[in-house]
Amino acid sequence: MEKLKCIISYDGSQFSGYQIQPNARTVQLELEKTLQKIHKSKTVKVFASGRTDATVHAIGQVIHYDSPLHLSEESWKKALNALLPDDIQVLEVNKVDNEFHARFDVVKKEYRYRVLLTPDRDIFRRQYSYHFPYQLDVTLIKEAMLYLKGTHDFTSFCSAKTEVDDKIRTIYDIDCITQEDELIFRFVGNGFLYNMVRILVGTLLDVGQKKIQPTEINTILEQKNRAYAGKTAPGHGLYLWKVHYDN
Amino acid sequence: MEKLKCIISYDGSQFSGYQIQPNARTVQLELEKTLQKIHKSKTVKVFASGRTDATVHAIGQVIHYDSPLHLSEESWKKALNALLPDDIQVLEVNKVDNEFHARFDVVKKEYRYRVLLTPDRDIFRRQYSYHFPYQLDVTLIKEAMLYLKGTHDFTSFCSAKTEVDDKIRTIYDIDCITQEDELIFRFVGNGFLYNMVRILVGTLLDVGQKKIQPTEINTILEQKNRAYAGKTAPGHGLYLWKVHYDN
Repeated sequence: MEKLKCIISYDGSQFSGYQIQPNARTVQLELEKTLQKIHKSKTVKVFASGRTDATVHAIGQVIHYDSPLHLSEESWKKALNALLPDDIQVLEVNKVDNEFHARFDVVKKEYRYRVLLTPDRDIFRRQYSYHFPYQLDVTLIKEAMLYLKGTHDFTSFCSAKTEVDDKIRTIYDIDCITQEDELIFRFVGNGFLYNMVRILVGTLLDVGQKKIQPTEINTILEQKNRAYAGKTAPGHGLYLWKVHYDN
Repeated sequence: MEKLKCIISYDGSQFSGYQIQPNARTVQLELEKTLQKIHKSKTVKVFASGRTDATVHAIGQVIHYDSPLHLSEESWKKALNALLPDDIQVLEVNKVDNEFHARFDVVKKEYRYRVLLTPDRDIFRRQYSYHFPYQLDVTLIKEAMLYLKGTHDFTSFCSAKTEVDDKIRTIYDIDCITQEDELIFRFVGNGFLYNMVRILVGTLLDVGQKKIQPTEINTILEQKNRAYAGKTAPGHGLYLWKVHYDN
């Protein structure tokens, strides 16, 4: 058996998220169906760095699987891309050590979130950038980010449905840049809780609209209660950008 | 009655083209359904500058309709955009002279065609740019364009299904520019026959690949036979960019 690690990209618009669930088109389902074709109908289980929700995109999601086939990395890439639907793409395939695990070996992850600032919506970006036609003070947003950076208990910034117990995470990098008519948020951390990036964005947009003061971020963190943070920003502005592993 | 002229944009991906046809989702159908809602279920007929095919996009399609309602231009824009599906957008509404006709008054039209030149496909552009991962000599393409510019009988460059008799058209401007990883074709003319832009692009890509010499364009024009030109490039790379009227 060989272990293959793939960097994949997908347009989340037509998926009910990454993870397999009954009666839904998911990224994992399409990956496993494709691998099954390559393996003469044998089931091949795929492991990802983590799930993404419905409509969320990936630029650099990472998955791994084991295979008895001996194909070159380039052949794997070609075979997968030839058989996958046109909204999933394999960017890179690497043979990795048998110990590698796409989920457990994650060192850090980067997410980005696109906000479209134009007064009118843009039909060509309706599935790729969150249209937010309101006045924003970016200086206030950047100030609020200083309170989020570092190690905190992010209970207030994750869905109440979050199943993990330990809600302490470290954000290494957090910033936003204006790129033409969009504001792009960037988050790098050792891990993100369920809906965490989208709630961070929703709250930071409240800060930008002066509904919340930057210093109030501290209070929200201290409350450890989802109700204190802002709304969950929609999924279609979110991109799983990069997953980092050691070496 | 007032006559309203609208500049509209649509993402052609989910439409069976512009024109109403049985059992299909078309742009005209969505426009007329929306206007019907605004007019208390009364039918309102919409006239466009011309049709576009399935998957073809529009940045500046022009339509007109007559209405007994007395709304301001801004109110029309807001009402239409509030009720239209999220892949059609009204960019501008103008009250026009009763004599205006979106189709008969066209003076010239501009189409653009996007070709994605990267070796790998890009899932985020799969519906917006034609992926063509082959070597292209752009100098040869530009040379061939010189033979297409001007007034010609374009019988060889339109679908055999074209219903009009007069196939003489004038191309005022024709060029292509490289924009990052794409080649953008631009065509401005007094009118375009059925599939004409897509056949021009297909033929010019043959020229770029050295399957056809630039000078052969003359021969193809002279044949007045669709069989001599290149393939019809796919619809999803094509954009109706702008429609010009006098005034």
